Order: sequence, then C-alpha cells, then structure tokens
Amino acid sequence: MRAVVMRSSELVVDTVPDPTPGPGEAVVKTLACGSCGSDLHALKFADRMVAIARETETPFAMDPSKDVVMGHEFCVEVLDYGPDTDDAVKPGRRAVSMPLLFRPTGIFGVGYSNEVPGGYGELMVLNASLLLEVPNGFPTDHAAMTEPMAVGLHAVEKARLDPGDAAMVFGCGPVGLAVIAALRLKGVEPIVAGDYSPRRRALATTLGAHVVVDPAERSVIDAYRASADLRPAAVFECVGVPGVIQDVMRQAPRGAKIVVAGVCMEDDTIRPMLGINKELSLQFVLGYTPIEFADTLAALAEGRIDVAPLVTGKVGASGVPQAFRDLANPERHAKIIVEPWRA
Amino acid sequence: MRAVVMRSSELVVDTVPDPTPGPGEAVVKTLACGSCGSDLHALKFADRMVAIARETETPFAMDPSKDVVMGHEFCVEVLDYGPDTDDAVKPGRRAVSMPLLFRPTGIFGVGYSNEVPGGYGELMVLNASLLLEVPNGFPTDHAAMTEPMAVGLHAVEKARLDPGDAAMVFGCGPVGLAVIAALRLKGVEPIVAGDYSPRRRALATTLGAHVVVDPAERSVIDAYRASADLRPAAVFECVGVPGVIQDVMRQAPRGAKIVVAGVCMEDDTIRPMLGINKELSLQFVLGYTPIEFADTLAALAEGRIDVAPLVTGKVGASGVPQAFRDLANPERHAKIIVEPWRA
Repeated sequence: MRAVVMRSSELVVDTVPDPTPGPGEAVVKTLACGSCGSDLHALKFADRMVAIARETETPFAMDPSKDVVMGHEFCVEVLDYGPDTDDAVKPGRRAVSMPLLFRPTGIFGVGYSNEVPGGYGELMVLNASLLLEVPNGFPTDHAAMTEPMAVGLHAVEKARLDPGDAAMVFGCGPVGLAVIAALRLKGVEPIVAGDYSPRRRALATTLGAHVVVDPAERSVIDAYRASADLRPAAVFECVGVPGVIQDVMRQAPRGAKIVVAGVCMEDDTIRPMLGINKELSLQFVLGYTPIEFADTLAALAEGRIDVAPLVTGKVGASGVPQAFRDLANPERHAKIIVEPWRA
Repeated sequence: MRAVVMRSSELVVDTVPDPTPGPGEAVVKTLACGSCGSDLHALKFADRMVAIARETETPFAMDPSKDVVMGHEFCVEVLDYGPDTDDAVKPGRRAVSMPLLFRPTGIFGVGYSNEVPGGYGELMVLNASLLLEVPNGFPTDHAAMTEPMAVGLHAVEKARLDPGDAAMVFGCGPVGLAVIAALRLKGVEPIVAGDYSPRRRALATTLGAHVVVDPAERSVIDAYRASADLRPAAVFECVGVPGVIQDVMRQAPRGAKIVVAGVCMEDDTIRPMLGINKELSLQFVLGYTPIEFADTLAALAEGRIDVAPLVTGKVGASGVPQAFRDLANPERHAKIIVEPWRA
C-alpha cells in the first residue's frame, strides 16, 4: 500500500506491506487523518520522545531508526475482519478508534509504532472492540477530529472544575482550541484566551472563548481579572515551549489549577516559590479515557462542538511533507487533513 | 522586653519595645516557640523571600533591612487584652494561635514582620479571636508543635487522597515527619519514607511510617513497589532543594499526586515530559486552614499524634543563635524549642 513514512527524520511517500488483521482486529481504509503537533515533534525530537517513553516505562516505544507510518487522528472505512472476530462495525461503514492496538504481543501506539502503520498509510489494523461507528451524515473529515478534540475534553476533565471556576487558556493552537471547545461544552464562563496569532485568536472566538487577547498587547491575567474578577481559575497551558509553565505560574491567580496540556520536549525552569506562595497545582495531562473519546465523537456528531472551522486544508499522500512545513505558520493552518487514498 | 532579633541576617539578643494590644487583641507571654526551617531560610534568603512575596502579591512582606523578631510556632500564656475585647481565653491560661495578626492597618505575619514581634520575644500581641485554649495537662512544648504539625495535615489534605491511596514521603525533616504523622492519622497504609539521616529515619518510624529507607541504599520507589505494589500513590516532596522535584517526578508512579511541601527558595529544573507521560500532578502547598490548625491541636492534645519524640532540645534566648547552627545537623535535632522568658 501507499504510505507516508517517517524515515531518518524525513517524510517520504513509499510503498509498504499491507497490514494483516489478527484475531479481534479489523483491517480498515484510512479515509482521513489529521496531522498533529506531536507528529511535528516526533520528526524533530524522535530520540528524546523515545528516551522519555523508556524512562517512564511506557509500554510502547518506537525505534526512530526504523520506518514509522505516523497518523493517529483518523476516520476509517471498515474493510474486513481478522479470524474469529465479530463485526463490531459492518464492512463499508465508517468508524473512529483510539490510536492504540492491543495485541497478545503487546500494546502498540497506532501512528508511533514500527510494527503497525498509522493513518498516513492507506490501510491500518485496529482492535474491533475499540471501533466506534460514525453516524450517517457526519462528515468524515470532522469525524477525524475526534482524537484531537478528545485531548481538550480530557484536559478539562483533569482540571476537576468546581462550580464557579472560570478559565484561562494560554495558546490557541489545536490543543488550546480543543480545550476552549470543551470548556464551552461544560458551560464554563468566562473563558479568557491568549495567542500571538490573529488567525488563531479568531478561531478561539469561533470555538467559544469569551475574551481573546494578543499577549503582546495585554496579558491574559489582566483580561481575566477584568472579566472574571477574583473568580477561582482553571488555567490551561497549551503552548509547550520552555518558559511557558513559569510564565503561566507567574500570571496564575492564587490557588489556580494549572493544567499542562502543551507538550514541552525540553527541560524547563520553574520557580517553586511562586507555586508555594500561591498554592498552585500543576496537572500534567496526556491523551484521554475511552469514555472521553466516545463522548467527544458524540459531541461532534450532535453538533455540540463544531469543528468545521478547524479543518483548514486537505492533502493527498504526496502533500504531507509540504503540509508539515505549512503547519509551522499559525496564520495559514489549524488542522490539515491527510487523505492517503489519493496520491 | 528581651527578644532574639534578626538584624542584618544575624540573630542577636536585644531589648526591644513591648508590644501594645489594640482592640480585639491580646498581649501574651511566649512560653515556648519552635524554630522552623523557614526561619533558617529567612536568615539566608530574606531578600528572595521578600521579592517572591511581593511578586505573588502576598498581603504582608517584611523588610529584612529592619529588625524582625521571628518565631511563629508558639504556645503562650494570655496576660491581658486590649480595649473593648472579650476574654476569649482567660488571663493566666495557655493558648496557641495561627501566626497571623489581622489589624485595621493590614495583615501581619507573626514572626515575619517588622511591625509586631514573633515568638522569639518575651511578649507578643495576637488576635483574641484566633486564640485556641490549650487543654489542662497538655505540655506547653508539645502545644507549640501545633503549627508545624498543621503544615503536615494541610499537605495531606491538599493531596485529596482517594480510598486505597498509599503514600511516599521524600525527606523526614520536620515537614516530612509532620506529613507522616498526618498520613498515619488518616489511616493511610503503607507510608513509605526516605531520608539520608539515621536519626530522622528512626523518627519517621516513631511517627508512623511503615517502611523507611536510606536512599543511598534503596530508592523510595523500589521500597514502595515492594510494599504497595501498583497502588495509586500520594507523594510528598519534603526536602526543598533544587533537583528534588525532578527526582520525585522521576520516581513517582503513573498518575501520582505529588504534593510539594518542601520549600525550595531557588529556581529549579523539571522535565515536563516526565509529568506528561505519567500524568503526574504537582500541588504546591503553604500553611493550613484555621480548621486544620484547630484539628491539629485536638489531635495532639488527645494523644492521636505524639509529638514528644520531635522535641529534641530547649534553649533560652541566648541559646538561639547556636540552636540555628545545630539544626543544620539532622543527627542532632528535629525541633528545638525556644523559651524566650529565660536568658
């Protein structure tokens, strides 16, 4: 099959073996697959990602010196099932799944594995039991947004919001926008967000932020105090570069619950006394639960979260290397959908 | 009155003006006052403490270029009251209080103020409404331990323990020991603690830790896994020097709730990916609530926490400078009680 392969820290379009479904598995056609900031990280920091995965005893870790077919935000068409497997979703129907594959030989991260391909390939194998059918009429490219939007819902759940909490969101890239959508879904008000990019600020408003600022002109905490006064704050760090956690701790009000949803790959410096004097908490988050994933699909399909504005481009397999370059410019794109069934 | 004064980063015994109680205030005789690691910090890092207090908009901050009578862990005898003040505790009786003084002109940290003296002076003024009477027969030096033991109870409360959580405690100085006592009070089991000092390890066992290790020989996480297996963990950082937060994050099991109770005055480096991959949380803590303070006095007075082993020395005013030097050696002392009524 055709696939976009990460090889020696480059993306190349190549032909790779078709995956074969084992018992309990489906073989599926990738209809649409989002490109994620983590994929950009993986290209740049693959060795560091793997070192951390090993250090933290993550049960799956790829070997970046071997081929990896990335892509973990997908909507698929079910083609067939492996031996002794019930039809969870009828062949010909569409589905989404958490990007994990549980096999007797181990757990594999779909999109970050040497053993199984991710959604930048024409075909994948997925656990039949993890497939969630996509309702008729719900657009395929929007269904592919289930995974990144579930990241936002999970971050909000991990904040353990109390009634009356208001929210600050630092950074309005795909993670920040997913957080804003989930906060809006939960009825949190006001949601105060900041980003240096005009395009992203416009998207933050579209997704439901009540107040959006350019941090070059006004700090997020200033805007927060003007609209939320002394309300307790859930604060979302959605940038993920060194220095941001400390800046968020500096701006956060006393007692704030800070959720670290930005993925900073490098070591970072904090001033513990800032946390102590204000009794801050930092909750690092990763992924989502199966229930959050299913709830997100339902929220998207029922129109409670509108992801249409987030899909800013579509490419075939050959367009992926350029898409990764384009994603570096926040004015051009939020989410680019890869359609690996077309060249 | 006689007082031990912090002056130009030195401790000197001097005569200072007697404090005068305003309306709603009591004037009290300091019977016993514990020496705290924060006092040692204040001597060494006063400028930094003040800078952080200002940066975090703490409502009270001392000027270290002027005299400060430290001491915030006290048991007192009530002498008299200011004008128009009810006898909350009858003169001649003993009391403890949170070390805060609320006045129409502001909030003052008793023991970290230029305006009012702390417990290293013979006399203090305290809010009548904050006085908690010490039950007859409960030793004065043990009552003075209410404040530091409340720090431990607060740290444990902020961990938001779930049923089945086990605990790890890094560092068995006064803060770590207070945390261990509070965990034991809550029925947490096992409590696994680590410290390089044999004396402190012995105290950790006395205060209720089930497993105590020398980290030079065995890591805390190894001991934890041997006794708690895969039980979810509340983890208490009670050391407070650079590098410890990162070490605790490295050792903490997936999903651990880390409470940062050690007070690190310097900037520190963390690896956010460790937190992300294991979904750790860091809860920074400071002080206690009034209810936790009162609950701690009750737990001590009723013998549910035995603080006798923690009181390892007593000095008069002139002994304080040497006591501060002695406290640097964990083999010699846990808590030294100052009795400023004697020279």
